[in-house]
Amino acid sequence: MTAAACVLCDTPGGRLVFEALDYRVIHADEAGFPAFYRVVWRAHAREFTDLSAAERMRCMDAVAVVEQCLRAHLSPDKINLAALGNAVPHLHWHVIARFASDSHFPGSVWAGAVRERVAAQELAIAGKLPAIEHDIVQQLLALRSH
Amino acid sequence: MTAAACVLCDTPGGRLVFEALDYRVIHADEAGFPAFYRVVWRAHAREFTDLSAAERMRCMDAVAVVEQCLRAHLSPDKINLAALGNAVPHLHWHVIARFASDSHFPGSVWAGAVRERVAAQELAIAGKLPAIEHDIVQQLLALRSH
Repeated sequence: MTAAACVLCDTPGGRLVFEALDYRVIHADEAGFPAFYRVVWRAHAREFTDLSAAERMRCMDAVAVVEQCLRAHLSPDKINLAALGNAVPHLHWHVIARFASDSHFPGSVWAGAVRERVAAQELAIAGKLPAIEHDIVQQLLALRSH
Repeated sequence: MTAAACVLCDTPGGRLVFEALDYRVIHADEAGFPAFYRVVWRAHAREFTDLSAAERMRCMDAVAVVEQCLRAHLSPDKINLAALGNAVPHLHWHVIARFASDSHFPGSVWAGAVRERVAAQELAIAGKLPAIEHDIVQQLLALRSH
């Protein structure tokens, strides 16, 4: 199912990391948050409960893999998960590694900045993305073969 | 498992709607958002992936029930789901019915207001909470008996 003029039906929505039959994982290019991924459901589902129970489980298993890989490589102060979709009502899960020193912590990434960004920290995180994404791909491939 | 000085270990964190063995559902008293619930994991888990796969499924099944009941009674413009926990790192899922006319839409509830609140709309929503919560309880009891 696709929808006319939906940016997540028409485009990947970010740099593609992994593509499964019913979802994909992308890296989101969000200033100040280098470790920001999204699990995007392939079909144009508006709400989480538009998915069947089995689909919800597959979706959240993917979210959990991304979260776990971020934790393993970055030891973030917190992971933030969210499915909002007010602007783009096509199911996508934000999976964001948060650090106490990032520009918005402890606020959400959707609130205002509370301090300056630290370029050196962002670069250090960005340098770990290839290893993180290698693990994401391997673990999602392993999920699929179950 | 409980943690010292954790508000979600020490208090319900809102008006209790349902209590299961490993989670509870509360109504959150958040100004401007009358249909704002939380699924709070009982144990002091910091991150979603601190739960086992089976626990994650039980947790998200509860989130889905709350979402579905909000949709059935309120036909919101969007449901927002989030597990952030930057301030209170004890796993809790926000489940929020959003309306195009609410004070923050299409922004997140954690961003700034973009328009005035509409008391009449908030009251109309609040009037439906008893029926919503009746359904939440019935459906969560049904889940538990599976």
